[in-house]
Amino acid sequence: MKISTRLLALLDRVAPPTTVHAHCDIPCGVYDPEQARIEAESCFKIAQKYADSDDETFRQRCLIVKEERAELAKHHISVLFSDRFKPEHLDEFPNLQDTFWRALKQCSEVKRSMDPSEGQKLLDLIDEIDDMWKKTGGLEETRVNGRPG
Amino acid sequence: MKISTRLLALLDRVAPPTTVHAHCDIPCGVYDPEQARIEAESCFKIAQKYADSDDETFRQRCLIVKEERAELAKHHISVLFSDRFKPEHLDEFPNLQDTFWRALKQCSEVKRSMDPSEGQKLLDLIDEIDDMWKKTGGLEETRVNGRPG
Amino acid sequence: MKISTRLLALLDRVAPPTTVHAHCDIPCGVYDPEQARIEAESCFKIAQKYADSDDETFRQRCLIVKEERAELAKHHISVLFSDRFKPEHLDEFPNLQDTFWRALKQCSEVKRSMDPSEGQKLLDLIDEIDDMWKKTGGLEETRVNGRPG
Amino acid sequence: MKISTRLLALLDRVAPPTTVHAHCDIPCGVYDPEQARIEAESCFKIAQKYADSDDETFRQRCLIVKEERAELAKHHISVLFSDRFKPEHLDEFPNLQDTFWRALKQCSEVKRSMDPSEGQKLLDLIDEIDDMWKKTGGLEETRVNGRPG
Amino acid sequence: MKISTRLLALLDRVAPPTTVHAHCDIPCGVYDPEQARIEAESCFKIAQKYADSDDETFRQRCLIVKEERAELAKHHISVLFSDRFKPEHLDEFPNLQDTFWRALKQCSEVKRSMDPSEGQKLLDLIDEIDDMWKKTGGLEETRVNGRPG
Amino acid sequence: MKISTRLLALLDRVAPPTTVHAHCDIPCGVYDPEQARIEAESCFKIAQKYADSDDETFRQRCLIVKEERAELAKHHISVLFSDRFKPEHLDEFPNLQDTFWRALKQCSEVKRSMDPSEGQKLLDLIDEIDDMWKKTGGLEETRVNGRPG
Repeated sequence: MKISTRLLALLDRVAPPTTVHAHCDIPCGVYDPEQARIEAESCFKIAQKYADSDDETFRQRCLIVKEERAELAKHHISVLFSDRFKPEHLDEFPNLQDTFWRALKQCSEVKRSMDPSEGQKLLDLIDEIDDMWKKTGGLEETRVNGRPG
Repeated sequence: MKISTRLLALLDRVAPPTTVHAHCDIPCGVYDPEQARIEAESCFKIAQKYADSDDETFRQRCLIVKEERAELAKHHISVLFSDRFKPEHLDEFPNLQDTFWRALKQCSEVKRSMDPSEGQKLLDLIDEIDDMWKKTGGLEETRVNGRPG
Repeated sequence: MKISTRLLALLDRVAPPTTVHAHCDIPCGVYDPEQARIEAESCFKIAQKYADSDDETFRQRCLIVKEERAELAKHHISVLFSDRFKPEHLDEFPNLQDTFWRALKQCSEVKRSMDPSEGQKLLDLIDEIDDMWKKTGGLEETRVNGRPG
Repeated sequence: MKISTRLLALLDRVAPPTTVHAHCDIPCGVYDPEQARIEAESCFKIAQKYADSDDETFRQRCLIVKEERAELAKHHISVLFSDRFKPEHLDEFPNLQDTFWRALKQCSEVKRSMDPSEGQKLLDLIDEIDDMWKKTGGLEETRVNGRPG
Repeated sequence: MKISTRLLALLDRVAPPTTVHAHCDIPCGVYDPEQARIEAESCFKIAQKYADSDDETFRQRCLIVKEERAELAKHHISVLFSDRFKPEHLDEFPNLQDTFWRALKQCSEVKRSMDPSEGQKLLDLIDEIDDMWKKTGGLEETRVNGRPG
Repeated sequence: MKISTRLLALLDRVAPPTTVHAHCDIPCGVYDPEQARIEAESCFKIAQKYADSDDETFRQRCLIVKEERAELAKHHISVLFSDRFKPEHLDEFPNLQDTFWRALKQCSEVKRSMDPSEGQKLLDLIDEIDDMWKKTGGLEETRVNGRPG
């Protein structure tokens, strides 16, 4: 790592910016793992329906749509990783980078497999991300008001 | 796989729902107005930040990103309209088509305006849609398990 | 610039239309059901070719491309619904909302089925939309000049 | 050019394939310059409205949307070029490649300029493409039925 | 900023290039056939892996992803054609338009076929484009610095 | 097919690599940081041109296009992170996750800023990724043949 980059990184830790961060890079300040979870649930359900069907057209469509949904889950996870979480969160969550890496990799597994258990593993990893999201403010900090009770 | 998921899967086989629906046309059976709400909240926040800023680069980026986020909100609302709700729901919700029409049109208003109140109107309309979604099954029927408590 | 275009531009300044509309939300004022029809025709032809072929690679590609084309048809129909037509049109077309709803739903049917008759039903519904489009101005109001004769 | 490529090209001219071609690469057999024209008309109208407005938000949105619409026009022109027209058409239209090249380049000009005359030049070039399209079958050969009279 | 970058920036002001060009229409001045080649290599490898596999899920995914990768190759080739090369290049490369036309058409062939040799033909055509790109400046003129040695 | 390609294909069968990887999740086995670098160079050049111009239309377009190009750079970096590199690479590159995280975050910085030095920082980070890519096989392992010399 270059000296300048190191100094910058150090500065980041000493004086974390007070500004908020967002799912759209503005940053708009709105984030929620539900976006990734909904797409991952779609993958999970598609794999279940695929297993239950013997209609060839339906089964081929399952592959097409799951490919697309898993890519969306991957995108949403990547945005949370790059924009929501910051170096100062590493103290509380030393496995943060690794958890996200495994979640991103699991999206690729979900693309490759028709086994619902791969979708379930992805959902479990999103739960781990959700846990970090909650502990760093969750709904109160990164949503406007969320769903009315 | 979690016990709850297993039970759900078992139940799926024993008592398949008579109507299927999905946010991806398979249909995968997963729907949630949160997708539209998160994008609409983003538009709302961007309009607020735009008003608070006098940085010209930032303000121009606000327009670019809001345009994109409002389009995503519109897409998610359109999917709920075309795929989640069905003719049999008109008995319970005679204004269903009109509510969705107004919500879709409000997305265009949100694109055109930098006034956060237009974003708030969209959020209110999504709450109306959310209400119909809840009354027709909500989380229990159209999600795998949703966010853990 | 052509004389006709100049005259049109002049007219625009002298007598600006009281309602504006657009396929891009600006609104730019340009709309045409041909956009949806062309994609729907593509779906229809793909289903025909699928039935006539026994080449497995070709048939699988048919599913992939039809999925995409039906989504585009759906998008174009949704834009006409949300941006071209307005509450004042309900007097003349009381079934407007229902026609669009059925057309959007038919796009999903077209995705699900390899039967050309589902594509034909979509084309028929687009003809109904086209009829409303013509009665509210058609080419003269929502195109610059359209195809030269 | 390699010998093998030349031979292939030669073969193409001697024994043109009887198969049809399409805007989606299947090929589905559906093509129409109207797709490009509608987007180009949108660019033209946006430039006019931009000139007539002094609302800064509106004017910035014009740039954003025109950029996107010109890209769509470019895409539709590129598809007609690569998939609809074939080596055997060069005999009748020796300028075919050059016309398409100029049309594609004009899309970039339309992106760069807010002058409606650049949009008009694009429309004129699309008319030239439309003319070739008509002379090679037009509506009868590349559409299912087109708009009802 | 690095010294080299500063010098480059200085040079840009002193001796602005007489022709500008860009892969993004700004024009930003950055172009490289590697973008198309990487996608074409992906298509080539997918076709090889398809032939070597008898896993039906994997093989169907190959079709889905190759369709998308070939479309990206086509897009990158189209951008080089419309934005990088200009009428003045026709003197040196009289077959310029024809080479690009054949390359674009070959992308469609790559979509249609699972034979790696179709991917190889595309790679050969991209090499021809690469040759023209090198002779008109290549890395030095259309990249900032490229990959460090 | 070229001899070199044939040999490569033969080799693939004789000694299949123990780990496969791909920029498209198949995995197709093709990866190259050049994809991210080209987009990052585009951002860098756009920021330079923005600074040198006082044309308001041009400057607004710079923001629009840089937003899009930075998003593409981010996507390509994310793919390398999730699909090319694997847990076993952590031994050799203990900072792997952190380097990618900083690169992804830098893409967001590039979106936010019109300062070319932010683009330069991104290029430097991509060089760090490129270095890891080279040390784990580079062109020989993750490309078919790359650019001819």
